[in-house]
Amino acid sequence: MKENLANLKKIVRELYLLEHAQAVLSWDQETKMPEAANEERSEQLALMEGILHQKLTSPEIGRLLSALGADEDRPEGKGDFSIEDKAFVREVFRSYKRAVKLPESLVTELARQTGFAHSSWIKAKNNSDFSIFEKNLEKIIELNREKAEKIGYKEHPYDALLDEYEPWMTTCRVEEVFVPLGKKLSKLTKEIVKAKQVDTSFLEQAYPVDIQDSFGRTVVSSLGYPFNRGRLDLTEHPFTTTLGSDDVRITTRYEEDLVLSGLFSNIHECGHALYELGMGDAVRGNILSTGVSLGVHESQSRFWENMIGRSFQFWEYFLPAFKKAFPEQTQGVDVDTFYRAVNKVTPSFIRTEADEVTYSLHVILRFEIEKAMLSGDIKVSSLPDEWNKRMKSLLGIVPKNDAEGVLQDVHWSAGLIGYFPTYALGNLYAAQFMSAMKKSLPQMDEIVSKGDFGTILSWLREHIHQYGMVYPAGELCLRATGEDLNPDYFTSYLDKKYSNIYGLRRA
Amino acid sequence: MKENLANLKKIVRELYLLEHAQAVLSWDQETKMPEAANEERSEQLALMEGILHQKLTSPEIGRLLSALGADEDRPEGKGDFSIEDKAFVREVFRSYKRAVKLPESLVTELARQTGFAHSSWIKAKNNSDFSIFEKNLEKIIELNREKAEKIGYKEHPYDALLDEYEPWMTTCRVEEVFVPLGKKLSKLTKEIVKAKQVDTSFLEQAYPVDIQDSFGRTVVSSLGYPFNRGRLDLTEHPFTTTLGSDDVRITTRYEEDLVLSGLFSNIHECGHALYELGMGDAVRGNILSTGVSLGVHESQSRFWENMIGRSFQFWEYFLPAFKKAFPEQTQGVDVDTFYRAVNKVTPSFIRTEADEVTYSLHVILRFEIEKAMLSGDIKVSSLPDEWNKRMKSLLGIVPKNDAEGVLQDVHWSAGLIGYFPTYALGNLYAAQFMSAMKKSLPQMDEIVSKGDFGTILSWLREHIHQYGMVYPAGELCLRATGEDLNPDYFTSYLDKKYSNIYGLRRA
Repeated sequence: MKENLANLKKIVRELYLLEHAQAVLSWDQETKMPEAANEERSEQLALMEGILHQKLTSPEIGRLLSALGADEDRPEGKGDFSIEDKAFVREVFRSYKRAVKLPESLVTELARQTGFAHSSWIKAKNNSDFSIFEKNLEKIIELNREKAEKIGYKEHPYDALLDEYEPWMTTCRVEEVFVPLGKKLSKLTKEIVKAKQVDTSFLEQAYPVDIQDSFGRTVVSSLGYPFNRGRLDLTEHPFTTTLGSDDVRITTRYEEDLVLSGLFSNIHECGHALYELGMGDAVRGNILSTGVSLGVHESQSRFWENMIGRSFQFWEYFLPAFKKAFPEQTQGVDVDTFYRAVNKVTPSFIRTEADEVTYSLHVILRFEIEKAMLSGDIKVSSLPDEWNKRMKSLLGIVPKNDAEGVLQDVHWSAGLIGYFPTYALGNLYAAQFMSAMKKSLPQMDEIVSKGDFGTILSWLREHIHQYGMVYPAGELCLRATGEDLNPDYFTSYLDKKYSNIYGLRRA
Repeated sequence: MKENLANLKKIVRELYLLEHAQAVLSWDQETKMPEAANEERSEQLALMEGILHQKLTSPEIGRLLSALGADEDRPEGKGDFSIEDKAFVREVFRSYKRAVKLPESLVTELARQTGFAHSSWIKAKNNSDFSIFEKNLEKIIELNREKAEKIGYKEHPYDALLDEYEPWMTTCRVEEVFVPLGKKLSKLTKEIVKAKQVDTSFLEQAYPVDIQDSFGRTVVSSLGYPFNRGRLDLTEHPFTTTLGSDDVRITTRYEEDLVLSGLFSNIHECGHALYELGMGDAVRGNILSTGVSLGVHESQSRFWENMIGRSFQFWEYFLPAFKKAFPEQTQGVDVDTFYRAVNKVTPSFIRTEADEVTYSLHVILRFEIEKAMLSGDIKVSSLPDEWNKRMKSLLGIVPKNDAEGVLQDVHWSAGLIGYFPTYALGNLYAAQFMSAMKKSLPQMDEIVSKGDFGTILSWLREHIHQYGMVYPAGELCLRATGEDLNPDYFTSYLDKKYSNIYGLRRA
């Protein structure tokens, strides 16, 4: 047993290293690569992907997993191992099984079709014409259906897809959470729409990009982002990527007339990066040393971005520096005004620009549509109508065109079906973690207003980060907060915060 | 035959892609990587190296080469192929043979020992104490001797090592060229030392680094470096690296008080890059699409750096822009003064800072020492003495300490024995190419003084670049210039240029 485990670790270490090598190529492609190099870089990446797939599905891994007694019923195997080693076997088994279940032909076809779909999505979006993208999306849905069948599921084909991004989560549970969540958020949004809007006029000015950058770097440094283990670059779409145990990079985008957008993007990606950089010694350097699910990952970015970064106390601490950086633009602005302004709520069309209250509604909409597309309850051709109908019912607004409606996100063109729910799950986990943190750190408001972010990061490391993938998301949540995922923390948090900001009447 | 060739091309294409993927990782390591990531990056690179070695030495490649009839006597095989396809088989055979001849254990041991040697070299250099590095260098020489034996050679073990960097070149031929070259260069140097030194006082001022950078970018753009197929970054030691057919990156280093150093480094690396970027359609995207030897590669960098970049006409064209960029520093400086200043000759200790006349003497010194170390004629322990003795005889000066003497270069610590001669061969090829170019472009002075560098680049592309590795260096030289490598072009060029600058008496 021990020897099989050691051998498995050795092979999987190579997978770990190669995945990060691949991440270097992707990071470079997004940030530094000269434009003419794109085609060959894609070939390099495809080749790396092939090598990775070959290594992951090698008969040797299958043999070692069998020898360790890992199977569907007991993915962690039968070895009398430590919790980490059991989790290691479980995660190798999960990856291996997913990989061997998918025939090479399907993987290749998906890659091919997403290539086409991506181009046609760009064209469709630029022309704001869904029909350009329709046939490609149909193909992608079809292939995802096939993928779900190959992988297998108990209740809903969507389970098989969701499991890739949010392991052990089920469609049924997401529905159970999202339906009441949607109702509560819609209700709160409607109340806010009727209230007096906050003043954001001081934000509607030019904020020089180079000062935004130096301020943004100061902020992420203060939150604990270590520039000797990462770096910050510019990209069109911000992201975080892990290139090694000590190399987790973030990217951002600044716009002169949208000072908050760049800043909160910095904080958001910093949240992701702190998770990846917070792995404990027991998992460091093997495949367990990464976020356990996209939902939990998003909980870390949204926690820092919204629950910390958009708190009153955060701006008690940072406003003086912000005003020093932008003295003209912020003349006469006090913490209260600033706090209200950074928490402006308004129904809008674009998910990535949505506020804390309406954001999850965008996600719920996509979840409903994905599920129905996959089961065939919605035809791809009727997607724009379905989209607009749901926007009306959830957010009370209807996009003027497909570009600001159904075509806005890249995910479907990239073949990512089952990914969206994790964005909203992140908000729910974040609020629940926040609540638990406040119980063990009752003086938390003071901690934030003093800028003592190390204390907060320590709590997150102790209860979440260090474990990497050791505990499945549900168990991690239970251990960190004492209960299963409970969306009430999120809705209570929002209700308290925004009834205060918008002066909503509460019993 | 055709099918075997097609199959071989398919496998070798993967090698080509993987080598460039590896280059991405190395480039990132040198330019962008956060410091804490170094250890894991080295592991990633070692793993990539292992995968490459495994692919290159795969029985499938051996089988295909046999089927194509490639052997030591006829490395290009027996297929009735195009010149490019024959060259392709020849080069795959060469790489394959070198790789299979070297036992895994020797490769690993060399990697291990160069790891140690690199650290000890840094320590030795910092302490200016050769004895710290001595034992490591002994080990490296010993392993290189073993390597030479495994690879095999006809006359001198040094042949086997030289062949890696300068294919088809022999130690005997290098000697034949270097001995008279050394004498001529020493003589010229001595003449110059006696002459009145040129005025470089205007260079001994602060030149702001950011302006150096924008001027440097303008220059390499003018020479034809396409920023959509490459980029320029800062590193401690400048280099050029190929990450894809359309992705050849250069790096540089600026110092405020050494304005020429950064600028000529830009031009030098640009010369390398233009070669890699000038591959013809017949070789593009396969292993033939790279420089045919390090000597020819260096000929391209030295051609642009010295024969163009240090020409009178070049500064007729660029001095106005340079003066505009640095008006205060260059007040009253005319083309003649500038031209003389950038061509200052003075015997100095550090090869990389040496002028055009003395540079090759540094290389000849290293070649003599390497050869003698390998054959055992010089003991490693006596290296500092041997070094200083040769410096005295070739350059007329003796270093004060080991740091500015025997310890100055990184190459030996990296296991690179047989590499140095290519630096001087580059100068010889460059002068010979220049002479041929002038025959077909008699108005060349005017071309340069008008800044019409495209015409020069076109000549290089037509006669050198486009062929990649199709023709071995010797044949390429013959085709481009009408004769074999002839060092007289270089010595005549130097004699004419520097007798003029330094007012040396000539018959």
